Amino acid sequence: MSEFSRLTPLIQSLPATVPFVGPEALERQRGRKITARIGANESGFGPAQSVLHAIRQAADETWKYSDPENHDLKQALADHLGIPSENIAVGEGIDGLLGQIVRLVVEAGMPVITSLGGYPTFNYHVAGHGGRLVSVPYADDQEDLEGLLAAAERENAPLVYLANPDNPMGSWWPAERVIAFANALPETTLLVLDEAYCETAPPDALPSIESLIDKPNVIRTRTFSKAYGLAGARIGYTLSTPGTAQAFDKIRNHFGMSRIGVAAAIAALADQNYLKEVKLRIANSRDRIGRIAGENGLLALPSATNFVTVDCGKDAAYARGIVDRLMSDHGIFIRMPGVAPLNRCIRISTAPDAEMDCLAVALPQVIRKLASG
Amino acid sequence: MSEFSRLTPLIQSLPATVPFVGPEALERQRGRKITARIGANESGFGPAQSVLHAIRQAADETWKYSDPENHDLKQALADHLGIPSENIAVGEGIDGLLGQIVRLVVEAGMPVITSLGGYPTFNYHVAGHGGRLVSVPYADDQEDLEGLLAAAERENAPLVYLANPDNPMGSWWPAERVIAFANALPETTLLVLDEAYCETAPPDALPSIESLIDKPNVIRTRTFSKAYGLAGARIGYTLSTPGTAQAFDKIRNHFGMSRIGVAAAIAALADQNYLKEVKLRIANSRDRIGRIAGENGLLALPSATNFVTVDCGKDAAYARGIVDRLMSDHGIFIRMPGVAPLNRCIRISTAPDAEMDCLAVALPQVIRKLASG
Repeated sequence: MSEFSRLTPLIQSLPATVPFVGPEALERQRGRKITARIGANESGFGPAQSVLHAIRQAADETWKYSDPENHDLKQALADHLGIPSENIAVGEGIDGLLGQIVRLVVEAGMPVITSLGGYPTFNYHVAGHGGRLVSVPYADDQEDLEGLLAAAERENAPLVYLANPDNPMGSWWPAERVIAFANALPETTLLVLDEAYCETAPPDALPSIESLIDKPNVIRTRTFSKAYGLAGARIGYTLSTPGTAQAFDKIRNHFGMSRIGVAAAIAALADQNYLKEVKLRIANSRDRIGRIAGENGLLALPSATNFVTVDCGKDAAYARGIVDRLMSDHGIFIRMPGVAPLNRCIRISTAPDAEMDCLAVALPQVIRKLASG
Repeated sequence: MSEFSRLTPLIQSLPATVPFVGPEALERQRGRKITARIGANESGFGPAQSVLHAIRQAADETWKYSDPENHDLKQALADHLGIPSENIAVGEGIDGLLGQIVRLVVEAGMPVITSLGGYPTFNYHVAGHGGRLVSVPYADDQEDLEGLLAAAERENAPLVYLANPDNPMGSWWPAERVIAFANALPETTLLVLDEAYCETAPPDALPSIESLIDKPNVIRTRTFSKAYGLAGARIGYTLSTPGTAQAFDKIRNHFGMSRIGVAAAIAALADQNYLKEVKLRIANSRDRIGRIAGENGLLALPSATNFVTVDCGKDAAYARGIVDRLMSDHGIFIRMPGVAPLNRCIRISTAPDAEMDCLAVALPQVIRKLASG
């Protein structure tokens, strides 16, 4: 074996893995180009033209490291949200921030609470720090707030994960339920409230900034990867108390941000007109996915995100068949939840009409083939 | 205090810190714009025009996550270096990779060997994982290979860091000395051979790829941040055995790479004519720094890097005075080593003529002021 012989016991116990297979890997495996990339909840609507302009401008400065204090982006976020910049930490996407959060609080063997079928990358980071995952089943396709709270208390857990709106189900809790959940948690349990999809949520699903900003045991995570259309730029941020925000400075990769990506995020934040427009397009695309699903006898679940989870009404093998055949026969990339009973569903990202047209043509063919096959 | 009350004991013990103060922070502190940014060993020559073109092209795809397998970049590096892509891992700059390497092998209290005054970001990551730094003094402004080897053996250390060429001194060892050092280390000691400056080194300073590629206990780290002029893109990579390379897949942030940055790196690698040209410009700039130093009674040390370390011939306070006054009086950003006896020196990055002209004008004024002050 060519592996260094003295990796830590924890590292030796971990598998080499990928939380998600990327669409490029699928293309290589299948030898087939993707025609509709609607599986990773990226935004095919793209970022604003003003953002593309800012990227092209920033290219000339890419020989410089990005400001390790992320001063300008934090200030822009602070102004936008109406809070001091001390309440904000910036990192390489929510994925990177989740890894740091786990590292801040989890030691080997510690229990960490999440939902069964929730975000796999969070689970990956928990495993990577030797934490012990305690998973609470969804209830009616929603994360089970009572169940999560009970598990956190029972296990005396240092960390609990809640996505609102939720991925992979697209469901959401109203703000007052989320606030009540946060307030009910012990002060010794840190809540990661993942709000990757906050821009596309109904207003009453989002706790106000003030409602949680003074709680040292709450970190809200947000991103420019979804509605802002900048998944490839890797720009995420957190909202918390200043003290909790400062903990990131103990372990983060200070020079880890892409300079062009930061410039893109600042430009994106400045163009709220575009965000308004793209939210409308996302909402229209959600409706379109709902109609396509209905025309094919499938049930689109309500969504507060830039994707729609569709109940295919049968078992996981049937949903898997749809996912696989859409890719192999039509080059359409979608994904599906990984765990029962969520995995009776498929998950389709909103996108421009061209991608939706592909889906509208392909889905009935796939379903016919599966029925005959 | 607004900090979450249950951070791990290790995290609680760490300071919130920045390994380096960035030039943007200096500008904000001093209320003065930087006119010559020659302190962070970035490349003011910038990347190739072909790379800027690739960045502008890639902007339209920045709504997509980057391929988590980094397939195309790894393949391009493999072709360039004449090795299989399985020997390569890709990460968010060498800084990010160093953090991962430390995490792979260091548990709390473990000894880690480096040079006293060596790369602070490595030390930051060691502290961040609870390692115990054992530092070996430089000998004649070079890292002390015998001393590092003796310390690694004495301490039964799992990890030793060596930069060749060295930062902050610009010095280097010939390839055969580095290979002998690697071969003399116990198999249970992982060598991080940091080759951030490999492109600007004399050919005989670089071990051949084959000489070390089969050793499971050697990881070479390289970057597009220096000669390739892409510091802001955060693209680093490692060369090792396939088994050791695969260990990164257990803990890395798979979707952590900037899509534009990866496209830029692939384009940079393809434009070896530009690299040849920029290496010449770097060499000319090194000579120019040497002349400017000499004209001011200072001694430029030999350099294999894109910077020149200049012995100011007095104590650390004197060198610090030059660094501070260049910034405060002239807006010229340089840095200096942090530890005696290296901190009798200042460290100046190579750059285009405009920056060198600023330095040539300012340095004699600063030295006169310090002499009269």
